[in-house]
Amino acid sequence: MGHNRDEKKADLKARLIAAAEAEIADHGLAGLKARAVTARAGCALGALYTAVEDLDMLVVEVNSRTLARLGATLSEAMAGASGPVAALQALAARYIDFAMENRALWLCLFEHRLPEGRDFPDWHRQEYAVLLAVIAPHLAALRPDLSREALVLRGRTTFAAVHGVVHLALQGRFVGLPPESLRAEVAALVETMTAGAAALAR
Amino acid sequence: MGHNRDEKKADLKARLIAAAEAEIADHGLAGLKARAVTARAGCALGALYTAVEDLDMLVVEVNSRTLARLGATLSEAMAGASGPVAALQALAARYIDFAMENRALWLCLFEHRLPEGRDFPDWHRQEYAVLLAVIAPHLAALRPDLSREALVLRGRTTFAAVHGVVHLALQGRFVGLPPESLRAEVAALVETMTAGAAALAR
Repeated sequence: MGHNRDEKKADLKARLIAAAEAEIADHGLAGLKARAVTARAGCALGALYTAVEDLDMLVVEVNSRTLARLGATLSEAMAGASGPVAALQALAARYIDFAMENRALWLCLFEHRLPEGRDFPDWHRQEYAVLLAVIAPHLAALRPDLSREALVLRGRTTFAAVHGVVHLALQGRFVGLPPESLRAEVAALVETMTAGAAALAR
Repeated sequence: MGHNRDEKKADLKARLIAAAEAEIADHGLAGLKARAVTARAGCALGALYTAVEDLDMLVVEVNSRTLARLGATLSEAMAGASGPVAALQALAARYIDFAMENRALWLCLFEHRLPEGRDFPDWHRQEYAVLLAVIAPHLAALRPDLSREALVLRGRTTFAAVHGVVHLALQGRFVGLPPESLRAEVAALVETMTAGAAALAR
C-alpha cells in the first residue's frame, strides 16, 4: 500500500510537470499560474504543494526536462560531424533549431529566477553543464595550447557568444538580427571564431 | 503664462525621469512602482500620468538616457585607439565597465517590455543604433571584402556575441563566466573574432 501511494504521488508529479511544460510552451513563463497548471493536470490546487515544494520548483523540473532534451539533441547533432569546426557548426545550428522550435521553454531556462534569498538545488545547476560539455572536446582540439582551466572558461565564453546572438534575435530586440538572417550569421560567427582560434593556436 | 506652464511640466517630467532612474538603479526594473517614483519625485501619484503617458513610457525615457550615456562613453573609449582591433577591444572593455557600474539600468535596456500589442516609439528604437554605430567602421576596416549589407548584419552579430557573454556573467547564470574572468574572457573573444576576421578577409 505504501508502494501504491508512492506510485500515485510520482504519477501526480509527472502530470503536473507535463501540465506546467504545456502551460509555459503556450503562454510563456511570465503567464504561468498554479491554478491553470493544476486544472490542466486534472487535480486540486492544493495537490501541487504535496507533489512539489511550490510553483518555482515545478518550473525547475520543467527546465530539467528541457535541458535533458536539449543535451540529447546537441549530442546527436555533433555525432556525424568530422572535425572540431564541423562539430561546432553542427552544435550551433542545432541550438538555433531547438531554440526556435521550443521558444518559450528555451527562454524559461534563462529567465526563471527564484525569489530573493533562495538558491537553485545543486542537482539542477549541474544539469546546465550539458551545454558546455558538448563544446569542450572540440575547443580543446582547436586550442591544444590552452590549459585545462583556460579551456573551461573559453567553453563558457563560446557558448555565451552564440547564445547571445540567438537570444537577442529571438527576443526581437532592436539590436538583434532579423530572424531570417540568424542561421547564416551564427554560422559566420562560428566560422570567424574557429578561424581565429586556429590562427591563435599556431 | 502658457510658457510658464510648459516649463513646469518639463520640470515635473525631468524630476520623474530622475526619480525612476534612481528607483531602477536601487531596486531593479522588476521592483519599479509608480508610487515609489512619485514619492521620490515629490509629486502626487496622478501627476505621473500628466507628465508622461504611463510608467512604461517613463521607463522608455530612462532607457533613452542610459543609451545616451552608454553611447557617449563608448565613443570616448574608442577615440584613443589606433586601428580596428584596438578600437574593438576598447569598446568591449568599456561596455563591461558600463554594465558593471550601471548594472540595473543596463539590464533594464534589454529586459523592459511593453504590454502585448504595444510598440516602442520609433524615436526610441533608433536610439539603440548607437550600440552598432560604434562598431561599424572598425568591422568594415577588418572585412573590406564584405558588402555594406553584410557588414550591417555582422555588426549586430558582433555586438550580440560580446553582449551575450557580459549578460550571462552579470546575471550570475549557471553557464555564465565568474565575474573575475569576464574582462579577460571578453578580451580573448574579441582577439579570436578579430584574428578570425583578418584570416577570412584574405
